[in-house]
Amino acid sequence: MKNPIITISRQCGSNGHNIGCELAKRMGVPFYDKKIIEMTAKKSGFGEKFIEENGEYRKNNILSDISRGLLYGEKNSYGDFEPLQNQIYNMQTKIILELAEKGSCVIVGRSADHILRNRKDILNVFICADMEFKIKHIMERDNLTKDEAEKTIRRRDKSRASHYHYYTEKKWGYAPNYHLCLDSSKIGIEGCITMIEEACYCV
Amino acid sequence: MKNPIITISRQCGSNGHNIGCELAKRMGVPFYDKKIIEMTAKKSGFGEKFIEENGEYRKNNILSDISRGLLYGEKNSYGDFEPLQNQIYNMQTKIILELAEKGSCVIVGRSADHILRNRKDILNVFICADMEFKIKHIMERDNLTKDEAEKTIRRRDKSRASHYHYYTEKKWGYAPNYHLCLDSSKIGIEGCITMIEEACYCV
Repeated sequence: MKNPIITISRQCGSNGHNIGCELAKRMGVPFYDKKIIEMTAKKSGFGEKFIEENGEYRKNNILSDISRGLLYGEKNSYGDFEPLQNQIYNMQTKIILELAEKGSCVIVGRSADHILRNRKDILNVFICADMEFKIKHIMERDNLTKDEAEKTIRRRDKSRASHYHYYTEKKWGYAPNYHLCLDSSKIGIEGCITMIEEACYCV
Repeated sequence: MKNPIITISRQCGSNGHNIGCELAKRMGVPFYDKKIIEMTAKKSGFGEKFIEENGEYRKNNILSDISRGLLYGEKNSYGDFEPLQNQIYNMQTKIILELAEKGSCVIVGRSADHILRNRKDILNVFICADMEFKIKHIMERDNLTKDEAEKTIRRRDKSRASHYHYYTEKKWGYAPNYHLCLDSSKIGIEGCITMIEEACYCV
C-alpha cells in the first residue's frame, strides 16, 4: 500500500512509541503522539497533563466518573450534561480524522485504529512484550524500582484497556482488532520496524 | 533464529492451515496438523473424527462434559476419574513435545504455543481475518450457504477459544499470548508467509 496511515496501539513498556517514532522517520511521514495531546489541550483550554491522563486512560470508580462528568460537564446537543472525558474523546476524534486526511502518517494510541476504521488506507498495529522486558524499560525510563515499574505497567494497561473498551466496545489487545501484532521482546525493536514496513508492501 | 519451531493458531476460515502448509514446504520442514490427529487416534484407539472434535474443541454444556468425562473416563494416578478430553489433551501434549524435540517444524492448532512455552526456539503465530473473507473461504471449502458458513465459523472459534482457555488459562486470540499476529484478509496469504519467514530472521 502506498502512503498508508499506520496506527500503533501498545502495551506500556513495549517500546511502541519509539518503534512508531523511528518508523515515521524512515518513511519520511509525520509522527503523532504528544502532538495530539498538544492540539487537544489547545482546543479545549485544559492543560496537557490533564488531557494526557483523560484522553487515553479510564479509571473505574464512581468518584472519578463524578469528577470527570458532573463537575466539569457541559450540555450536549440533547441538553444533557456531557461527561468531560467524552468531550475530550470527541475532540481527539476530530483531530485524528483531520490529521489522517492530510495523508500518510504514524499515529500512536488514542483508539486511532477504531476512529479511522472506515478508511481503506490504514494499517493497525499492536505492540506487546513480555513483562520482564517491559519492567526493564520502565525502570530505566522512569527511574523506578522493579515493583514500582510492574505496578505502573499493570495500572496503565488496565486503564488503557478500559478506555478503549468504553469508547469502541472492542477488546484492547485482541488480535482480530488489528492487522499486525508484534512482540517487541521477541522480535526486537529493529525487527518490529522492518516488519511494519514489510506489511505496508503486502497490504 | 535458525531452525525454529513455528506454531500457528488460527481463526476458522482465515487460511491458517494453508499458510502453515506452504510455509513448511518453503522452509523444507515437517508440517503437523492432521498428522497429530492420526498419531493421537493410533495411540488412543479412538477414531480420527472423534479425536479431531475433542482435541481442539470444547462444548460448554453439562451433558457434553458428562459424556466426555464420566461415561468414558479412566482413573488417573490419584484414583479419580480422568475426563476423556483430558486424556486426549495429555496424549496430544506428549506427541507435540516429542515432535518438537525432532527439530524445526510447523505445528497448527492444539494449543501448541502453550504446550511448547518453555522452549526458546519457538515462534508463536496467530492468523485471523475479517468475517467477509472467512465466510467466502468456508462457503467455497465446505459448499455452504453464507449463513451456514458464518454459523460454522462462530461455533468453531467459540469452541476453540473455550478449549484453549480451559487448558491454558489464557485468552485465545489475545495478542500478548503470541509473538506475531496477522490478518490474512488484509495482508494476504502470500504476505503472511513472507512475514512469518521475515520474523524467523528477526527473532
